[in-house]
Amino acid sequence: MSIITLATDFGTVDGYVGAVKGVIKNIAPHVDLIDITHDLDSISKAAIALSRYYDRFPKGTIHLVIVDPTVGPERLPLILTDSRFTYVGPDNGIFSWVLRAAEKIASYAIHPAKVKTGEISSTFHGRDIFAPAAAMLASGRTPHEIGVKLEKPRLLEFPKPIIESGYATGEIIDIDKFGNLITNLGMRIVKEFSTVIIEDKQSVPLGKTYSDVEIGKPVAYIGSTGYLEIAVNSDRADKYFGVEIGKKVGLSK
Amino acid sequence: MSIITLATDFGTVDGYVGAVKGVIKNIAPHVDLIDITHDLDSISKAAIALSRYYDRFPKGTIHLVIVDPTVGPERLPLILTDSRFTYVGPDNGIFSWVLRAAEKIASYAIHPAKVKTGEISSTFHGRDIFAPAAAMLASGRTPHEIGVKLEKPRLLEFPKPIIESGYATGEIIDIDKFGNLITNLGMRIVKEFSTVIIEDKQSVPLGKTYSDVEIGKPVAYIGSTGYLEIAVNSDRADKYFGVEIGKKVGLSK
Amino acid sequence: MSIITLATDFGTVDGYVGAVKGVIKNIAPHVDLIDITHDLDSISKAAIALSRYYDRFPKGTIHLVIVDPTVGPERLPLILTDSRFTYVGPDNGIFSWVLRAAEKIASYAIHPAKVKTGEISSTFHGRDIFAPAAAMLASGRTPHEIGVKLEKPRLLEFPKPIIESGYATGEIIDIDKFGNLITNLGMRIVKEFSTVIIEDKQSVPLGKTYSDVEIGKPVAYIGSTGYLEIAVNSDRADKYFGVEIGKKVGLSK
Repeated sequence: MSIITLATDFGTVDGYVGAVKGVIKNIAPHVDLIDITHDLDSISKAAIALSRYYDRFPKGTIHLVIVDPTVGPERLPLILTDSRFTYVGPDNGIFSWVLRAAEKIASYAIHPAKVKTGEISSTFHGRDIFAPAAAMLASGRTPHEIGVKLEKPRLLEFPKPIIESGYATGEIIDIDKFGNLITNLGMRIVKEFSTVIIEDKQSVPLGKTYSDVEIGKPVAYIGSTGYLEIAVNSDRADKYFGVEIGKKVGLSK
Repeated sequence: MSIITLATDFGTVDGYVGAVKGVIKNIAPHVDLIDITHDLDSISKAAIALSRYYDRFPKGTIHLVIVDPTVGPERLPLILTDSRFTYVGPDNGIFSWVLRAAEKIASYAIHPAKVKTGEISSTFHGRDIFAPAAAMLASGRTPHEIGVKLEKPRLLEFPKPIIESGYATGEIIDIDKFGNLITNLGMRIVKEFSTVIIEDKQSVPLGKTYSDVEIGKPVAYIGSTGYLEIAVNSDRADKYFGVEIGKKVGLSK
Repeated sequence: MSIITLATDFGTVDGYVGAVKGVIKNIAPHVDLIDITHDLDSISKAAIALSRYYDRFPKGTIHLVIVDPTVGPERLPLILTDSRFTYVGPDNGIFSWVLRAAEKIASYAIHPAKVKTGEISSTFHGRDIFAPAAAMLASGRTPHEIGVKLEKPRLLEFPKPIIESGYATGEIIDIDKFGNLITNLGMRIVKEFSTVIIEDKQSVPLGKTYSDVEIGKPVAYIGSTGYLEIAVNSDRADKYFGVEIGKKVGLSK
């Protein structure tokens, strides 16, 4: 039984996600449809959320991600495949994290005429192009049969940390539901340093988990995806520090 | 494997949806349970959301819809069947769109004693009547076995567009998660006209998709369900125009 | 096909729930994964929500509940089993309602080394310990194989009603999505009395369902889980009475 995971920015209340699921089940009744989220609010959030779950799934899983604010002829409908997974969604950068991590990945532009099940609307390619494409792939069709090779899928800019002698500067790239601050400072960089400083002002002790500090106090630690995170025990770090995505986080010796 | 889709206004946090799912799985373990939404907030929203997904699913799908503010003896528990789908839920108008579109549909009032799995609570027919009814139907029981024929299921009033010479007047019947305005002006009416006017004041250009206009500008187009919609490229049309459901949308030549 | 139900406080947008689902599907591809909620906000809410659905599911169901604010070495990762269900989650009180209702239940502390699929993070035991443990149990491993017997799983304090001659005093223990007030006054206590009083001031008539009173008026009734609830017909009782969890509800003759 193939798995299709489904992540969108549709919310659920309008029935749009229902339509996507119906199209998939109609083409591939036996597919195992796994909801990831329908609350995404941006392309960059979709990209980082995907990076947290895609490689936990079994080989062969199809990851359908639909955050498509620029739906229309300007952006291509995309299929990506590597040795383990297939990805379907708009070519607008949502697969940036996957693409950066992948060793070898093939890209295809979906040919709408080969996947359409009726009229293709101008505003709902999730239902009319991406859903049938994912379902056809789950039913054994190859990317070659429904698309054409594409050279360079779109990548979001990824802010790289700056490493100087005795100092590294990264930034907050995500804030999760709990208010934890996720940075772009990877494990290998962090272990060269001993002090974490937010916005050139407040230093935060390094620990392993929330309870390494007293309730209400901040702590920095290597998060579950291998990047430096900053949390406050039993509280929100974003509120505590008054920071948002893009703010600087420094490391010193 | 039968499919049951599930749409409710329960939210998920209280465990009520969990109870409904447990009852279904207990009676029909092999059923493929598909979440649609648990965030509905009114009967009319349930009706319009359902209209967007029901006919995308494979033949034989059972659509369970539970928005039941008047739970109690005053409204009947309902089963509807046509040649493709079965619907289960309270007889309060949530199936209005389905009923209006259907050519031939049979209605039954569920006999609570024939579906109950224990005590029937006075306030949670979703768990105690609708869930077991849907699960029994998925397990091969017929509507006849668990209900009695019913004549006229309840219909919500549907505001019909008024068409005069050279002018048509419809209204906003839904606002989706993105703030897009969905009207009751169908494709066939719209193509007779060339200008869209909101609230007798602001005209909106006709296009095909959001990016037909500049960012921040409004556009009208035939939406994914065949009705005229009004959106603002990369923004919310409801905020832009300061309108709500029920406001007038006109068409002129 | 085994069922695993999944209730968390993760929200869905960050991809953490996706990671948990991926881990489960990787170990136990055929498991039937049922979403309960990802919107829990406290241990006590998790405990009461679980009490509403766990025993509706078929025998053999594994209930995975992850609300884990004190993740770390201070609380053990738990498995509970009785003659019908298995429960997996942190030992922080989330299983209090289950434990109080159970006649005979065995407790185990999960041995992290026996379930880990890679590095175990310090902050995401949901993905690294609870998910693989639940999936292994769904694949036929026994609690004995992956854990060690544990004596006393943690219990939350449960406020017991005080019953005096002619008067009983309980309290509001939950407020649901609709604003209904759920008390700790069980059916057997309630039937000895005839008057419900909120906060020693306002009396509420006893009825069976919302529509037993006029729109906008309050009514008390035995709720779907057997406890006294107070609602307002077509409105929110929490707003109507200006009350919150912990406030007193009295019964008199």
